[in-house]
Amino acid sequence: MVRRRRMVRNYDPDRPVPAEVRERLLAHAIRAPSAGFSQGWAFLVLETQEERDRFWTATTDAGAPDGWLTRMRRAPLLVVLFSNKQAYLDRYAEPDKGWADRDEARWPVPYWDVDAGMASLLMLLTAVDEGLGACFFGVPGDKVDALRAAFGVPPEYRPVGCLAFGYAGDGDRRSPSLSRGRRGVDEVVHRGCW
Amino acid sequence: MVRRRRMVRNYDPDRPVPAEVRERLLAHAIRAPSAGFSQGWAFLVLETQEERDRFWTATTDAGAPDGWLTRMRRAPLLVVLFSNKQAYLDRYAEPDKGWADRDEARWPVPYWDVDAGMASLLMLLTAVDEGLGACFFGVPGDKVDALRAAFGVPPEYRPVGCLAFGYAGDGDRRSPSLSRGRRGVDEVVHRGCW
Repeated sequence: MVRRRRMVRNYDPDRPVPAEVRERLLAHAIRAPSAGFSQGWAFLVLETQEERDRFWTATTDAGAPDGWLTRMRRAPLLVVLFSNKQAYLDRYAEPDKGWADRDEARWPVPYWDVDAGMASLLMLLTAVDEGLGACFFGVPGDKVDALRAAFGVPPEYRPVGCLAFGYAGDGDRRSPSLSRGRRGVDEVVHRGCW
Repeated sequence: MVRRRRMVRNYDPDRPVPAEVRERLLAHAIRAPSAGFSQGWAFLVLETQEERDRFWTATTDAGAPDGWLTRMRRAPLLVVLFSNKQAYLDRYAEPDKGWADRDEARWPVPYWDVDAGMASLLMLLTAVDEGLGACFFGVPGDKVDALRAAFGVPPEYRPVGCLAFGYAGDGDRRSPSLSRGRRGVDEVVHRGCW
């Protein structure tokens, strides 16, 4: 399952994701671990044509769509994943953690985003398991406000990324980035010391 | 596999992780996706008693260990996962991405850390698959320099977390945080709009 996973960037627009598969994706996502069990995440599920059009209009530039966008827009299901830093600061202000000052400097790593990555990966793997294609991609920083406005997202929620799901379409193109080659275990693993 | 995963905080100190299982953990970790296929991560693998002692000495306060630390120190294998922001800035400065200014403000989300979260989750799931216990925990911000010094870690690498692996020991204690309860799908999923 791990080895079969790859990003899919073209979808069959005529095959929706079955409701039970969609629910399994979400049920698995919320099994991700989170610091202090904060679970400071939220998932915006977009399925109808109108909902998906609204997402793409808010998050992409107007004008003729490029090939990437044309193919990605065929995905019948989008899940936008948000993190909520405040939920973590609040959780760790509780007595058992004791960071009552809610000082963000205590957090050398933004675990609200790390945990969202874990939840995303659970959805990506579940998609493989269900025979679905999926792609994780970011929402451009200059489109975040438009996205919030389009769907009424509260300001404390920040989009970590969007996951597209669907059955792979013909002519899917692999990311050109893959030609860089995967860095092998020997390149990235240090044993005992650096 | 997803539902069986939970953090294990006590290990059998007399059962090391077999070498082939250790290698499978690492081989799966590097299959995680990464933005632009940047793969800006590194893994520090600590197995001998001396290596592990050095880790715990660098990252915890001196004095009598508490119960958590006593049990965690029994883990026969530690993998410290690092992210390298610079690798992402460099990757996106290449012509196909075009962010030649390497301006960090272009990154609304620290994907170097999100991607490390994905790699971590692949190791956590692989551990379940192998019958191992595992726990992901953070390195305190005020211990990062000591950790770098202890193992010769270059300054551009920041520890995202440490994963402990081993066979679960008797008397493992579940995190008290779990009593908060899992937030259900209906609490965190928004359908169509917020």
